[in-house]
Amino acid sequence: MASEVFSKQKTIYLRKKHIGPSCKVFFSHDPIKIVRAKGQYMYNEKNEQYLDCINNVAHVGHSHPEVVSAGAKQMELLNTNSRFLHDNLVQYAQRLQATLPEKLSVCYFVNSGSEANDLALRLAWQYTGHKDIITLDNAYHGHVSSLINISPYKFHQLAQPEHSQHVHVAPSPDIYRGKYREDHPDPATAYADDVKDIIEKAHAKGCKIAAFIAESLQSCGGQVIPPVGYFQKVAQHVRKAGGIFIADEVQVGFGRVGTHFWAFQLQGEDFIPDIVTMGKPIGNGHPMSCVVTTREVAESFMSSGMDYFNTFGGNPVSCAIGLAVLDVIEKEDLQGNALRVGGYLTELLKKLKERHPLIGDIRGRGLFVGVELVKDWIKRTPATAEAQDVIYRLKDQRILLSADGPHRNVLKFKPPMCFSTADADLAVEKIDQILTDLENALGLCMSANKDSTNAHSKRKEILEENGHEFLSNDTNDNQHTIKTNKRQRT
Amino acid sequence: MASEVFSKQKTIYLRKKHIGPSCKVFFSHDPIKIVRAKGQYMYNEKNEQYLDCINNVAHVGHSHPEVVSAGAKQMELLNTNSRFLHDNLVQYAQRLQATLPEKLSVCYFVNSGSEANDLALRLAWQYTGHKDIITLDNAYHGHVSSLINISPYKFHQLAQPEHSQHVHVAPSPDIYRGKYREDHPDPATAYADDVKDIIEKAHAKGCKIAAFIAESLQSCGGQVIPPVGYFQKVAQHVRKAGGIFIADEVQVGFGRVGTHFWAFQLQGEDFIPDIVTMGKPIGNGHPMSCVVTTREVAESFMSSGMDYFNTFGGNPVSCAIGLAVLDVIEKEDLQGNALRVGGYLTELLKKLKERHPLIGDIRGRGLFVGVELVKDWIKRTPATAEAQDVIYRLKDQRILLSADGPHRNVLKFKPPMCFSTADADLAVEKIDQILTDLENALGLCMSANKDSTNAHSKRKEILEENGHEFLSNDTNDNQHTIKTNKRQRT
Repeated sequence: MASEVFSKQKTIYLRKKHIGPSCKVFFSHDPIKIVRAKGQYMYNEKNEQYLDCINNVAHVGHSHPEVVSAGAKQMELLNTNSRFLHDNLVQYAQRLQATLPEKLSVCYFVNSGSEANDLALRLAWQYTGHKDIITLDNAYHGHVSSLINISPYKFHQLAQPEHSQHVHVAPSPDIYRGKYREDHPDPATAYADDVKDIIEKAHAKGCKIAAFIAESLQSCGGQVIPPVGYFQKVAQHVRKAGGIFIADEVQVGFGRVGTHFWAFQLQGEDFIPDIVTMGKPIGNGHPMSCVVTTREVAESFMSSGMDYFNTFGGNPVSCAIGLAVLDVIEKEDLQGNALRVGGYLTELLKKLKERHPLIGDIRGRGLFVGVELVKDWIKRTPATAEAQDVIYRLKDQRILLSADGPHRNVLKFKPPMCFSTADADLAVEKIDQILTDLENALGLCMSANKDSTNAHSKRKEILEENGHEFLSNDTNDNQHTIKTNKRQRT
Repeated sequence: MASEVFSKQKTIYLRKKHIGPSCKVFFSHDPIKIVRAKGQYMYNEKNEQYLDCINNVAHVGHSHPEVVSAGAKQMELLNTNSRFLHDNLVQYAQRLQATLPEKLSVCYFVNSGSEANDLALRLAWQYTGHKDIITLDNAYHGHVSSLINISPYKFHQLAQPEHSQHVHVAPSPDIYRGKYREDHPDPATAYADDVKDIIEKAHAKGCKIAAFIAESLQSCGGQVIPPVGYFQKVAQHVRKAGGIFIADEVQVGFGRVGTHFWAFQLQGEDFIPDIVTMGKPIGNGHPMSCVVTTREVAESFMSSGMDYFNTFGGNPVSCAIGLAVLDVIEKEDLQGNALRVGGYLTELLKKLKERHPLIGDIRGRGLFVGVELVKDWIKRTPATAEAQDVIYRLKDQRILLSADGPHRNVLKFKPPMCFSTADADLAVEKIDQILTDLENALGLCMSANKDSTNAHSKRKEILEENGHEFLSNDTNDNQHTIKTNKRQRT
């Protein structure tokens, strides 16, 4: 049993004294001290158990014994850099490659999703000889300076937002809240055409596109699932302009989506990115990550004349841990579990939506699920404060969930992959109770929103009859709420 | 006993197939496969022992049992992100802070030296509101794109070298090969005045200086030890211009220099940087690192409105390992060992210099030692090919050493800190034999160089009598050798 070194009060005091104040804790009004964790459960200093619905890094379960043992054994033997030959490195590269389309065959091992995405940019710049990057609105790709530049999720937090002239922001392909919605006849083409427009405008200014980068499913951006076919069409436009496609799988890879090992594969077999970046779940918490690309891109990177060396990247311990994670995913059929339990959870939540006016949308693939809270169903006004309320009340019931997205109103499920149907039952039952209480307090009832739904359908019919695309500008309706909540999370 | 999964041939084949070709191995003509390591010794697949004179990452010795055990124990209990309170994080920050001047009190934990230096730049940009960075020639600060920009060691490798207009390169304060040498009356002031000139020129162009960054001792840049007082004077010029001073201790921190825990402390007690970055040795191979700064800089960073979050940085496992490394340094008096053994090694090498015309200079602090090989003592023509020859021949004798610096002619000692006097004896004995053989083959003898020394002194006297500073442009004498060797190392 783990014990405390300091009282919780003292831990908080020392944290304030010695840790950068920009580094925020969860539940800043009343943070949690966690001393141990196992599977999908975390335990505080009083040994109270929390159900963990958010730690996608502890992918195969917190402190999985096989992963711990693989790491410990290798640490005892050898941990050194990749300038020495070692079997773990090549064996791991071989195993990772086997999960990917054949042409994605060359690996670079690094230490974090940020290092991976930065290297992806360097590969793209070198391969294309171009400078400009197209990124999605609300995207988050990492914390190093080159990635802050391409992360609207981050640079919008700035008191004086600015971004590089070489960065172009395309609309997020969000069919619930975005520019083209679920009732649009072909949102994939419409969103891809916006990327095409961006390319044309960039060309008109003499700029050249090096890459389009997107998470295969936007996570911090609000658990957004792009319409099928979007990536193919974007890739076509971008490649025609001499650029390449970078799929960021840092948050969503390694079987989480259930049907596939990689989330970009949800787009169909005819889509293959030029670069895939990995991170968070890859080492179940161990600092490691990887960039995989084609032989062509890798050869071009070498032709610059500059070597690439990463002190810790691809060391024997990281690779041993990475191999153990792949083994456990397979042995325990965690991808299958994500499909089954994720599907079960999504169904439960969809039933909940029928009874709760605060739930605007349920969307998910496997154990990547978003619950978007809104104040009403027509305007889709983000229920930001309510989402905060829900996660704090859940925490009191010892369930860990977070709220994210540009309006911080999307409840994000991304639990360890050993999450069970019983866990889903418990979490949904508690959310049900909390939403009921909140709706009662707010005087919200289902009939009101049912009317909204009818009104919504009606408005859509009229617009469509008149040949208009159904667009709404409600994204900006709630500026005050957005701003006051902007600084609470990363 | 560790065993192989693949034959060495197969490992090489798979590495070529699946690992980025820019990722080079040591001894590329005949790379080494290492399967285990202990203390200052590494073992290949045939269980042959190598003396390790280069792995500064395995700071307290390869696979140190206390470090391994601390990591394994914490991995079993909990490994999660720093949004939860945890005692390891604050305890480790407290312990690190205690090694530093009091005003360096706020820590940011990240995963690599590169992440640390990138964050240091972000802190500097935010705190000063300025953009420009002054870096030293031949400097290496990391592999992410922002750091390639400030690393002449890297961007000079490019077929078409270019660097940002916001980056200014100051001469390396190298008193053996640099602009102002050991016979200059005040090289510290002279080199610092060059930084002042750069600032003035930048101001004339409307640019503003955010920071000066330097390794406290240049490592890849050729084991350069800046003259005492240089940092104080630079800091004065830079602060006057509204910029700050970043001391990069990624390669040289944690007691390696023997007399002090941090290499910047060699400059004297009156020097305190605004930011210190750490890396390599901090976790004895575990991917972790840290940025420490002042409360003022940290508060300013927060005032941007942007949170800082690093998924793996400061996790309980990394902090447990970091704490164990500090414990071992203390318990085993490794800083004291670095002072004693480093001093012994430097003395042995200085004696060697008296007998070997190929040795141009010996310089070192603790277990950070450089042996600069030259073809002759006046022109100081870099003996680049000879240095390569030495390290390959040493490897045949199972001693691991590397050659670095802009001309790749500086033999670099930076062994695990448990290096012993017997290890020093062995390494120096082998170098002695190899240099003798090489010098015989080249027809070099001491008398020739002794004449050079006399000639050298003579030339100096004449120049000084005439009121000239003693400067030599021999740095550029050997362009061909430099270029052909540039692409061999990172």
